[in-house]
Amino acid sequence: MTTDNARTKTRDPERTRSSILDAALNAFARKGYHDTRLDEIADESHTSKGSIYFYFPNKERLFLALVDQFANLLERRITEAISGEETAMAKVEAALEACLATFGKYRRQAKVLLVQASGLGNTFEMKRIDINERFAGLIEQYLQEAVEQGEIAPIDTAIVAHAWMGAIYNLVIRWVYTGDPEPQRIVNTLVPTLLRSVGYVRGQAPAETP
Amino acid sequence: MTTDNARTKTRDPERTRSSILDAALNAFARKGYHDTRLDEIADESHTSKGSIYFYFPNKERLFLALVDQFANLLERRITEAISGEETAMAKVEAALEACLATFGKYRRQAKVLLVQASGLGNTFEMKRIDINERFAGLIEQYLQEAVEQGEIAPIDTAIVAHAWMGAIYNLVIRWVYTGDPEPQRIVNTLVPTLLRSVGYVRGQAPAETP
Repeated sequence: MTTDNARTKTRDPERTRSSILDAALNAFARKGYHDTRLDEIADESHTSKGSIYFYFPNKERLFLALVDQFANLLERRITEAISGEETAMAKVEAALEACLATFGKYRRQAKVLLVQASGLGNTFEMKRIDINERFAGLIEQYLQEAVEQGEIAPIDTAIVAHAWMGAIYNLVIRWVYTGDPEPQRIVNTLVPTLLRSVGYVRGQAPAETP
Repeated sequence: MTTDNARTKTRDPERTRSSILDAALNAFARKGYHDTRLDEIADESHTSKGSIYFYFPNKERLFLALVDQFANLLERRITEAISGEETAMAKVEAALEACLATFGKYRRQAKVLLVQASGLGNTFEMKRIDINERFAGLIEQYLQEAVEQGEIAPIDTAIVAHAWMGAIYNLVIRWVYTGDPEPQRIVNTLVPTLLRSVGYVRGQAPAETP
């Protein structure tokens, strides 16, 4: 334990935590969640079991931290994409494209997290629901902004946000699993479909929602 | 075993299978999938473990049969609702309403199947994907019909069908888990949102999809 603590102390804590997460992702990808032992993650990250326990109380929490890491990355990419856009609806479009691009770039990571997650049962299901609600909340916020700025007619933004979230999630996750259809085809149809669903037409006054 | 077989033979096979499924659903709801023993299902259905094994090779297959039973019921209700409608888009609307009404009527059953399913890991995930594809296929068929009959402008019906399926699934499952928002509010917003997403306006010629 003395050696473990000494080893940990010589490194930047954020870097150590990050090395552990990278090593865990590799190990889960290679051997599966259940068959991965913390010793292997310690070896691969050049840390120790003591270090791992310092950051993560158990293997499940380590896995959930990987899920959070991916969700945080996704939110960061989406926020960056949005910041360059002026109108609320252009923000929505940029957000959707950033979401698909991020899943595209980190497809292997996303697949490991989704496929291995099925071994975690309800714990992961609750995490999935949490993240789903968080992103639906983001969508709702921008839809609300679009309504307030008169870009779209008033709608039940909570329902529409969860509908959009479901539509995006279903196509993205299906693509992660099967590789089909190709991301550009998803973007080409999904973005105008979602925008039409709230009566938005580029450069036009809001249509009446029936 | 002789007693078991004799008991089984005195009953209609379809009725026996159905009693086993009903008893299994009750037991899973009461004790959870993992803690339910086949003996209890046998007792509650007034059958025997021999009878259960005659219809279902193991507990997992019994659970998956319950999921199929629910999916078949849902498809039957949707098909019935559609049969009374003339235009393809009216069919889509009737289908959505029937879907929400069926989940509403069998909410307890749906909740047991979803919550307990997390214990089954990948087996259930594959079943969920199967059923998702089956219903997306149904939606696509009707969207294709609407395009062919000139009710909506041409679209990538495969992408839109999976987007609709995701939107519906997300709102319905969320409602099953949380009871929120109430089904009528979901129907009121989701149906016009989905119809708008393909440029459909009741009683109008198809709008150009951008």
